[in-house]
Amino acid sequence: MKFILIPDSFKGTLSSTQICGIIHEKVQKHFPGSETVSVPVADGGEGSVDAFIAAVGGEKVTVTVKNPYFEDMEAYYGLIDAGETAVVEMACCAGLPLVEDRKDPNLTTTYGVGQLILAAAKSGAKKIIVGLGGSSTNDGGCGAAAAIGVKFYDKDGKEFVPTGGTTIDIAKIDLSGRDASLKDMEIVTMCDIDNPMYGPTGAAHVFAPQKGADETTVLTLDEGIKNLSRVIAETTGKDISEVPGTGAAGAMGAGMIAFFDSRLQMGIQTVLDTVKFDEMIKDADYIFTGEGKLDSQSLRGKVVIGIAERAKKQSKNVIAVVGGANDKEIDAAYEMGVTAVFPINRLPEDFSVSRYHSEESLAYTVDNILRIIK
Amino acid sequence: MKFILIPDSFKGTLSSTQICGIIHEKVQKHFPGSETVSVPVADGGEGSVDAFIAAVGGEKVTVTVKNPYFEDMEAYYGLIDAGETAVVEMACCAGLPLVEDRKDPNLTTTYGVGQLILAAAKSGAKKIIVGLGGSSTNDGGCGAAAAIGVKFYDKDGKEFVPTGGTTIDIAKIDLSGRDASLKDMEIVTMCDIDNPMYGPTGAAHVFAPQKGADETTVLTLDEGIKNLSRVIAETTGKDISEVPGTGAAGAMGAGMIAFFDSRLQMGIQTVLDTVKFDEMIKDADYIFTGEGKLDSQSLRGKVVIGIAERAKKQSKNVIAVVGGANDKEIDAAYEMGVTAVFPINRLPEDFSVSRYHSEESLAYTVDNILRIIK
Repeated sequence: MKFILIPDSFKGTLSSTQICGIIHEKVQKHFPGSETVSVPVADGGEGSVDAFIAAVGGEKVTVTVKNPYFEDMEAYYGLIDAGETAVVEMACCAGLPLVEDRKDPNLTTTYGVGQLILAAAKSGAKKIIVGLGGSSTNDGGCGAAAAIGVKFYDKDGKEFVPTGGTTIDIAKIDLSGRDASLKDMEIVTMCDIDNPMYGPTGAAHVFAPQKGADETTVLTLDEGIKNLSRVIAETTGKDISEVPGTGAAGAMGAGMIAFFDSRLQMGIQTVLDTVKFDEMIKDADYIFTGEGKLDSQSLRGKVVIGIAERAKKQSKNVIAVVGGANDKEIDAAYEMGVTAVFPINRLPEDFSVSRYHSEESLAYTVDNILRIIK
Repeated sequence: MKFILIPDSFKGTLSSTQICGIIHEKVQKHFPGSETVSVPVADGGEGSVDAFIAAVGGEKVTVTVKNPYFEDMEAYYGLIDAGETAVVEMACCAGLPLVEDRKDPNLTTTYGVGQLILAAAKSGAKKIIVGLGGSSTNDGGCGAAAAIGVKFYDKDGKEFVPTGGTTIDIAKIDLSGRDASLKDMEIVTMCDIDNPMYGPTGAAHVFAPQKGADETTVLTLDEGIKNLSRVIAETTGKDISEVPGTGAAGAMGAGMIAFFDSRLQMGIQTVLDTVKFDEMIKDADYIFTGEGKLDSQSLRGKVVIGIAERAKKQSKNVIAVVGGANDKEIDAAYEMGVTAVFPINRLPEDFSVSRYHSEESLAYTVDNILRIIK
C-alpha cells in the first residue's frame, strides 16, 4: 500500500509537518511496512522554505540582507531540485514578528526580499518561487524592486526607496536598471488571496491594521498604493490594480507582477508542480489531505480541492481530515474529487476548548478512518 | 449488500428510530437497492413497546389500569413474536410525565405495572419483558406486587398497599397469593443501571430528587426501602439489597426480583435476543450502531459494546456513530468488536450549539463513512 500525506496546516493548532507525522504513525500502525510519502504543504508564509525542503530535499542558503527597518540581518532562501529551483519566503526578512514593538507599515520595507531574490537568481537557479504572507510592510514591493535596480523618483526628480508612507510620493519609475541576472527568469509567486491593490478590500484596509496602522494611516497607505498603481500603469501601460492577489502582503503581489515579471499562482498548485504530484500519486492507494476548515472558501482552489482535482484525473481516493466542515457549502467538493471528509471533533466542544486536544483528536480520527479502510 | 441499523438513541437529541431513518436514507443513496434492516433499540423506558414492535412486528393491547395515583387510565402492553412474548414498559402507567405537577414519590404507585404484567400473562404470552425507567415512584415495586396478589401487612397485622412513604411500615409480606398465571412465567427485566436498593447510591438518594423529593423525603424514602429490603430477606431468605440494579426505577428492580421472580438483564441483550440478532447478521455486510457518548460507561455493556461483542463472533464490521467519544477511555472497544467510531461533530462547537444540528451532523457523517466504504 502507498499513502500520500499532503495536508495544509490547521491554522493556530497544528502545522502541516505535525499533521503528516501523526498520520504517518497511524498508517504504520495499521499498515505496517506500507509506503508513506509526506508532503508538508508550504503556504508561502513563514516555514515555506523548510516545507519545500522537507518535501523534496534541498538546502538552505544564508544571506545577509536588510530587515524591515533597513538593518542588516541573516536571512535565507532554499535551493531544491538540484539547485534548479530557489524558494524565497518573504516572511523571513520582512515578516511581522521581526518588527516586534516597532510595528509601523509607514516605515517598513521589503528591500531584503529583493536582495534574497537577487541572490537566488545569481546562484544559478532557473526558477524562483516566492512565498508571500506574514509581512510587516505595505510598500507595494517597492523596496524589493529597489534592491534589484528599479529606480523610484519623486516629483522633484529625486531618487528614493519608497516605503508604505512614501509610495504616495512616487512620480516616476524606471525599470531599465533591473539586474541582468533576472532577465528571462521564471518567477512564480504563491498567493492564495484575491484582494486588489487598494480600496475597501485592498491591502491597506484589510491587512494594515494588524501591522500597526491606525485608521488615519490606513487611509494614507491606501492613497499611496493607489498612486503606485497609477505610476505603474503609466510606466508599463498596464493597470494591474484589480488583478486578484495584487493586494497581498502589503501589495507585494502587485510589485511581483510589475517589477519582477512574476505571475501569481495558488500556493497549492506551486507545491503540486514542484513535488511532481501527478507522478507521485500514480501508484498511490490513498491520499490524505486536510484543512483547518472546509467551506465555500476552500472550493476556490485551496489545498484540499487543489489536490482533489488532480487526484480525480487518476481516479485516486482523497480523504480529507478537517478541523471543521460546513457541509452545506461543500457538497461540490465530492464532485471535485474528494472521496470523504472527516472532521476531527471527538466531543461537542467549542474551539476554545477543543483546540488544546487537536493532536489527539486528529490521531483518533485518522485511526478510525484507517480501521474502516482495513 | 446488507446493512443492519441498530443504534441507541442520542439522549436529548435523536431517537433510535430517527437515527435508523437517517442512516437508511444515506445507505439507499450510496448503495441503491441494498437491504437495510432497522432495529430501533428499546431502552426499557417510554417508547420501548413501540421500538420492539417496529423492530419485529406485533401489536399493542390496551388495558385499563391504575395510574401513579390509583386512578384509572388507559395503558398498554405489546405482543410480539406471534403473541409468545409480551412487552411491558413501566413508564406508560407509572411514568413521571403522568404526574405532571403532582410529583410526590411518597404517594405514587407501580400498581398499574403489576396489572399490565398480569394482563400480559393472561394473554397467553410465554415470556414477559418488563422495561424499567422514567418512573415517578419509589415504592420498591410493592404496588405492582399488590396487583398480582402479594399481600403487605403493617405491625398491627393490617393489610395495605405500600407506596414510597409507607414502605417503612411493612412488617410482613405474604407471597402465597400471587396470581397463578404468573407461575413459571419467564419475566426478563431490562435494566442498565447498577444502583443498589438503598444507601448513598440507592434509589432514593440518586433518583428521588428528580421525582419531587426534598432532602427530608429522600431520607425517609431511603429508610423505607431499607425496611422493605429487610422484610424481603426475612420472607424469602435472600438479601438482594446489594444486587446491582435493584435500585432502578424507585427500587422496582428489587420488586421485580423479589415479587416477580424476574431476572435483571442489560437492555441491549434483551433486544438482541428478541430480534434474533445472531441470525439477522449472518449475511450482513455492515452493522451500524451508535450511542450519545462512547466512554468507559459504554464498555460495561451498553448498546454499542453489546452489539459489537456478538458481531465479533461472526467477524462482522461494526461502525459506531456517536455524539461524542472519549478516546482515552474506549481503546478496549476495538478489541471488543467495534471496527471504527465516528463522532458526528462537524464543527468545533459546544453541545449547547451543536445539539440543534444533530440530524444534519449525523447525516453528514454517515454520508462520508459510506463514501469511504464505497
